[in-house]
Amino acid sequence: MLSDTLRRRLLDALGDGALLESPEALAAYAVAATPLFAGAPAAVALPTTTAQVVAIVRACGEAGVGIVPRGSGTNLSAGTIPDRGGLVLCTARMNRILEIDAANWTAEVEPGAVTASLQAAAAAQGLYYPPDPGSQRISTLGGNVAENSGGMRCLKYGVTRDYVMGLEVVLADGSVVQTGGKNVKDVAGYDLTRLFVGSEGTLGIVTRILVRLVPAPQARGTVLACFAGMEEAAAASAAVIAAHVIPAALEFLDRATIAAVESYQPSGLPTDAAAVLLIEQDGHPAQVADDLATIARVCREAGASDLRTATDPAAADRLWAARRAALPALARLGPVLIMEDATVPRSRLADMVRAIDAAARGQGLRFATFGHAGDGNLHPTCPGDARDPALMARIDRAFEEIFAAALALGGTITGEHGVGLAKAGYLPWRLSPETMAAMRAVKRALDPGDLFNPGKIFAAPRPRTGSALHA
Amino acid sequence: MLSDTLRRRLLDALGDGALLESPEALAAYAVAATPLFAGAPAAVALPTTTAQVVAIVRACGEAGVGIVPRGSGTNLSAGTIPDRGGLVLCTARMNRILEIDAANWTAEVEPGAVTASLQAAAAAQGLYYPPDPGSQRISTLGGNVAENSGGMRCLKYGVTRDYVMGLEVVLADGSVVQTGGKNVKDVAGYDLTRLFVGSEGTLGIVTRILVRLVPAPQARGTVLACFAGMEEAAAASAAVIAAHVIPAALEFLDRATIAAVESYQPSGLPTDAAAVLLIEQDGHPAQVADDLATIARVCREAGASDLRTATDPAAADRLWAARRAALPALARLGPVLIMEDATVPRSRLADMVRAIDAAARGQGLRFATFGHAGDGNLHPTCPGDARDPALMARIDRAFEEIFAAALALGGTITGEHGVGLAKAGYLPWRLSPETMAAMRAVKRALDPGDLFNPGKIFAAPRPRTGSALHA
Repeated sequence: MLSDTLRRRLLDALGDGALLESPEALAAYAVAATPLFAGAPAAVALPTTTAQVVAIVRACGEAGVGIVPRGSGTNLSAGTIPDRGGLVLCTARMNRILEIDAANWTAEVEPGAVTASLQAAAAAQGLYYPPDPGSQRISTLGGNVAENSGGMRCLKYGVTRDYVMGLEVVLADGSVVQTGGKNVKDVAGYDLTRLFVGSEGTLGIVTRILVRLVPAPQARGTVLACFAGMEEAAAASAAVIAAHVIPAALEFLDRATIAAVESYQPSGLPTDAAAVLLIEQDGHPAQVADDLATIARVCREAGASDLRTATDPAAADRLWAARRAALPALARLGPVLIMEDATVPRSRLADMVRAIDAAARGQGLRFATFGHAGDGNLHPTCPGDARDPALMARIDRAFEEIFAAALALGGTITGEHGVGLAKAGYLPWRLSPETMAAMRAVKRALDPGDLFNPGKIFAAPRPRTGSALHA
Repeated sequence: MLSDTLRRRLLDALGDGALLESPEALAAYAVAATPLFAGAPAAVALPTTTAQVVAIVRACGEAGVGIVPRGSGTNLSAGTIPDRGGLVLCTARMNRILEIDAANWTAEVEPGAVTASLQAAAAAQGLYYPPDPGSQRISTLGGNVAENSGGMRCLKYGVTRDYVMGLEVVLADGSVVQTGGKNVKDVAGYDLTRLFVGSEGTLGIVTRILVRLVPAPQARGTVLACFAGMEEAAAASAAVIAAHVIPAALEFLDRATIAAVESYQPSGLPTDAAAVLLIEQDGHPAQVADDLATIARVCREAGASDLRTATDPAAADRLWAARRAALPALARLGPVLIMEDATVPRSRLADMVRAIDAAARGQGLRFATFGHAGDGNLHPTCPGDARDPALMARIDRAFEEIFAAALALGGTITGEHGVGLAKAGYLPWRLSPETMAAMRAVKRALDPGDLFNPGKIFAAPRPRTGSALHA
């Protein structure tokens, strides 16, 4: 519950209809896309201007009420859950695409602008915004910035960080800072832009975003390669890299994922394959043709049993629709789908696939795994049921083992989903106490009162209890 | 002068021959590549290991003696000048290339490794390290990281920041932090890696660097386009971008630069042209051929009087040698060459060229300008003479006007040379007090005692005295 003073200040700043306190609204914003996490916000603010965000920050700062910023809440690390109450600041009404600058290949947007809308606005001018998180049809750019979102095109095109050129951010003291700009090169002071990217709403509220665009690729084509074993698929992925091809996407789906997709949305994927790789190249038509031929050759040499090349856009789109159906298809397999995001250097992909398999079998679980093979970024998933605590504990232990294995392979606990609440206990597994201390020092410097997204990223270390770790 | 206590601690840590205090050594490290700046170090340390760097940091921290980190000192912002005395920590002996990882397309180096050595080691495995600062034959990777160095390939390939995947850094309290790693995606905590990149040695001492490599391009080719006026050259540059070509380099030289180059190292540049553009493309042979044809066409349409296309490497290399000769050629024109680094969004290139011309004429000076047209990153230069204070004051005023003009065009005071001492007074022209305060807060958080490179980046604002600003 807001105090009367804070409510009055927020209403003064926001006007009617932009401060929600009904039970229905509080229930809606108590949750987000990450299963099994819920909070209890005191209220929800829907600002439309930077000035309103400043007023909210000042009012909440003086009242000592934390602010949980969010867009569409599609992150998968419980990063937008108001688990400590406080005010949810939702950017949904700050959703304008302010400019597509065709001469400088930039776009400026408000944080609530939807990723797919930006992509469409860029495409209308022959330009391209590559980052494509799985939730791109509803995710917001503000959320993409907060999470440093990835997607399928990162191997060639990089992640959100590589496209953000400048930000407007409201800091904890209510000051508004501008970082970066349209200059391709700019070394005037610290790179605050990239400090805010990926900071999960813990350092400030982003109110404007300037991103880089690139010319749309002229051509694209896709190879589907089917393998009798996971090892062969991982070897083929490594062979593509060894051939010095940088594909636009290099995705893989295991047998269980293929089965789920075909049952949910029949797409012609081979249900008898142990794994498939979906590999896209884009660019100059001659490069696409040559690279697809190279990709097909190395996949064949690595043991691909079936190879299909799709160069007409409709056929390629069908294959990619199948890949994009993986998550919704798997989500149908149980009351809740637990999905993780362990990532390894790409050369360790086969080791990581083996470790996932061992962790699942060790706990008597059936996993389905898909993900970004070219990035070493895997999404092992397991259907769960919150009503079955023993099952959930086994899933938990399996994922602990997976994180430990990823770290042992030089990997990380999260490639693209963020830390949020879901991974906060694991972050000290990934980072040394000294590195954690440096991050905390930065947090304290910019948000000394812990106003922004309190409790996210930083938490007490989670003890290692996974059975593999005791072996 | 070091205190006896500090000297003893440093000698204990470093061993013989790695702590220099002779007048000759102190004189050598008092200066660096930026003309007109000199300091007076108390001593010079040449560590070989991270442990020695830690010992130096601890000893200097306790003694309250500042540390000025440097590699080859090739930065052009007086960033490595020990103007407040203290200890120069030179990484020259930490120069190993530790690993080229062909499977993950990464390289790990010590900070004193020379940029060109890394490029050669990568090339030996068919890989490519794109950042190419002008000083690449002697500059160190540690210096590149500190300055977020650019070069000629940034439009297509990005700057140093875009290649650094991870760092080992010694912090002010002597702790050693590891950031990033070989994972293409990793969102575990704040992006400290990119906070350190471009921080000019003010936040920590980098002791290891992990960089990303890319496959070497298969083919390359260059177009030389000659123009009767600067405006036409700027229009041609914009037309290349409008044609959605992303050249590997898009450089320009004005008439004065061409004359200096031809007098220094005859290269066949057209001395009757007002400006030339040198445009390189690399990649798939068919893409290179198509893009060079497009580039030639749009340059012709923009009024190019002469066009040469070089697709054999030797011919292309001769053209690029001419471009790389610009700085040494101009440096011969007077006792000292003052060079600047104003940068604008690429669409404002023609406006910036006009502003440089107006500033030079307003002060009765003859400028020569070259630079990275595709990045909007221009290097106006003027020969000076420290014995002529009136001349130096006019040059100073002209550059002030140039900075003010760049800022008015949405540009910045430094695209790739850094702030250091040389630009510290101008930084508050570029950044708001709120943004400066946020940067200072980060500095205080990580280096509360101002141990690292004290006095760099942050300084009192320089009053605006340029005559154009009074108009």
